[in-house]
Amino acid sequence: MRSPLYLSQKSRRTHDQPISYFMQQAVENPNLISLAAGLVDAESLPAEEVAQAAEAVLRDPVRGKTALQYGTTQGLAPLRDLLVRRLAEADGIEPTALRLSADDCIITTGSQQVLYLVSEALLDPGDIVITGAPSYFVYHGTLKSMGVRTYAVPCDADGMDTHALAALLRRLNRRELARLRLIYVVDYFDNPTGSTLSLPRREHLMELVRRYSQEHRILVLEDSAYRELRYDGPDLPSLKSFDPDNEFVVLTQTFSKPLAPGFRIGYAVVPGELRDPLLRLKGNHDFGSSNFSQHLLLHLLTSGAYDRHVERLRDVYRRKRDVILAALKEHFPADCGVTWLRPNGGLYVWVSFPHEVDTGPQGRLLQAALEAGVLYVPGAFCYLDDLAERVPSHEARLCYGVASEAALREGVRRLASAYHQVTACPELTVSASR
Amino acid sequence: MRSPLYLSQKSRRTHDQPISYFMQQAVENPNLISLAAGLVDAESLPAEEVAQAAEAVLRDPVRGKTALQYGTTQGLAPLRDLLVRRLAEADGIEPTALRLSADDCIITTGSQQVLYLVSEALLDPGDIVITGAPSYFVYHGTLKSMGVRTYAVPCDADGMDTHALAALLRRLNRRELARLRLIYVVDYFDNPTGSTLSLPRREHLMELVRRYSQEHRILVLEDSAYRELRYDGPDLPSLKSFDPDNEFVVLTQTFSKPLAPGFRIGYAVVPGELRDPLLRLKGNHDFGSSNFSQHLLLHLLTSGAYDRHVERLRDVYRRKRDVILAALKEHFPADCGVTWLRPNGGLYVWVSFPHEVDTGPQGRLLQAALEAGVLYVPGAFCYLDDLAERVPSHEARLCYGVASEAALREGVRRLASAYHQVTACPELTVSASR
Repeated sequence: MRSPLYLSQKSRRTHDQPISYFMQQAVENPNLISLAAGLVDAESLPAEEVAQAAEAVLRDPVRGKTALQYGTTQGLAPLRDLLVRRLAEADGIEPTALRLSADDCIITTGSQQVLYLVSEALLDPGDIVITGAPSYFVYHGTLKSMGVRTYAVPCDADGMDTHALAALLRRLNRRELARLRLIYVVDYFDNPTGSTLSLPRREHLMELVRRYSQEHRILVLEDSAYRELRYDGPDLPSLKSFDPDNEFVVLTQTFSKPLAPGFRIGYAVVPGELRDPLLRLKGNHDFGSSNFSQHLLLHLLTSGAYDRHVERLRDVYRRKRDVILAALKEHFPADCGVTWLRPNGGLYVWVSFPHEVDTGPQGRLLQAALEAGVLYVPGAFCYLDDLAERVPSHEARLCYGVASEAALREGVRRLASAYHQVTACPELTVSASR
Repeated sequence: MRSPLYLSQKSRRTHDQPISYFMQQAVENPNLISLAAGLVDAESLPAEEVAQAAEAVLRDPVRGKTALQYGTTQGLAPLRDLLVRRLAEADGIEPTALRLSADDCIITTGSQQVLYLVSEALLDPGDIVITGAPSYFVYHGTLKSMGVRTYAVPCDADGMDTHALAALLRRLNRRELARLRLIYVVDYFDNPTGSTLSLPRREHLMELVRRYSQEHRILVLEDSAYRELRYDGPDLPSLKSFDPDNEFVVLTQTFSKPLAPGFRIGYAVVPGELRDPLLRLKGNHDFGSSNFSQHLLLHLLTSGAYDRHVERLRDVYRRKRDVILAALKEHFPADCGVTWLRPNGGLYVWVSFPHEVDTGPQGRLLQAALEAGVLYVPGAFCYLDDLAERVPSHEARLCYGVASEAALREGVRRLASAYHQVTACPELTVSASR
């Protein structure tokens, strides 16, 4: 008999993502149209551009060897410099106006590593983190693993409701406020809602953070993973740009969405005092993300290939978004009781079914959808289950990133067919008519 | 005035590597010959081979897109399969004889990430880990960050002294044994001693682990980072090969040393029950290491380019090792009281000066060496400072990986000059004769 293996407390708090089971379904059933997986469009991945960058970097006698040697834990200095300048440029300001330089930037293994390192640097079990309801479910798993308490603030078409946030902050007692460390916001084309935090709410959020950071500092973790995937409407300035002394906001962005997930490169721009603690942790994690990937990325950015690619990618995803929205409109007529948020960017459409429809794994809709050959993410997965209120169970996240335009149309048709099958909605004709 | 930033307990336990200061010295002083940095030979980095692999992967219409898409958290399946088969082959057995398959392998961001994840999965503050004295100092930092207690077992030319380990295990009381989770061994061409754990000690170590794993399991973390950099002598079977039921040994290896650090790819072969806990943690860290790097690596392995490269690299390092050993022999004659271990592989020579010579940052030797233009790693850095015994302060680690053959000769000459300057050794003529 084997003697038992002891796992750490943290390990025992670290659970499988509820989504894993569904992803497995998709892998095992090739006929399934997955509107669940948050992957990116495969067709538009820039293989040729990366091949050219690899050739340019590796066939340069000096640069080739440098790219294959160890880098630093913080990451390639010219890349960090460029990223900080591009961020400021996107916000229409100078890096110096935000007291930012390459020193404040850390290159990471995707933005997920930023979420992890920031949480590890700041959070002890029992500390408090505020997120949106709904919000990015992978980060919920990380928070649970850290043993923290969470509060969730309702989100709508304008992102996190900062008036609800203000009410929550007023409601917290002194002891709770003393443990509040972090507010997590996906502020551009949110995962899962697709909504963007409005300008007034950006200002309000930062004002609240400042006001409540008296005895200790409350940080904002600004996850701007989808910022560059904007299809309509104006770009809004980052929360970081409302932080002129580089005190409150950790901004993170990733190249997984606008370029290629295969590189696993993201980055953070962090308040000065947080940089060294993060680097010390990252030194223990891996002492630096792939130096080779960073050199290729730098080449793609400086050659202009990256910007040209993002431009093309926006067109691809804009079309896909229009296709899925048109299909939703076609298959879920207004009197069906099904509504959705129109995203101006990103990869997701957040759909609300009538309250009596349970979209979860125990509900009839998901079973009918799987039988019809389509998969979505049950909305309940995007809510923290320790939220005081009851978790809504009538929503769904649809991703239009992966499926082709034809598959998007067919996927929505199958979803509608499943919906009409499990509800008494008179629009049954929609699926019967095919 | 800024409100204070609270850091987690773990963050407060995570310190700068003592080595950082010295690395900075090397960066700031280009005339310094660094025998300190554990980097690899730049000249032999396989830029052309990687360029060819990148072209083959990226210009294949299917594979190019796949390599740029997300991979899985566990890593590329055919790569894992190949790595497990290569490991078994190196040990002269079949994977099935060890109950191993691709399922037991996890691809990571260098082997450092294995050290971190395994520690995170197993260790709570107050748990006990056994390492060698001396051993790999970067891992010491990770252990401190975890808040664990450590015991160190003396190492000699045959690696960790397992009789001393047996004595330590006998000495531990029942409560301490209950907290003992892990024994860490760099068992091929150790960092810093260059020594390899002998065959009888391998058997003895595994026998001890088995004997003391009654109430709970004690794991062995086998860091075989340098195994493929073997220049003389026979290859020894891994500790993993003495673990037929895949119960006790986590083996880790890296491609940073035998191929290119720039990829940041390593891997672990782990006991079945530890796999899912590690994957859940890694899912939160980064949900998978660079998929692109993994595809390139798979191509280099299957095309044969990797094995040809390792063969050439062995010749390069064998010559460098011979150069540094010859220089040591020339500049430190036998009656000087300076001795060293002859490594059969790896990147390091472990030098012992007479006991009265302090090689540490406060000692005269290091100052004189810096003035002479050479840098080494003070031996004391390689001992855990919570070791019951006094930390030896008369040793040094020399790395022959980075410097050219000429620089190795000149570096050792400078070190000898510094040594003769600070000691009363009659061989002062060695430096005076130049």
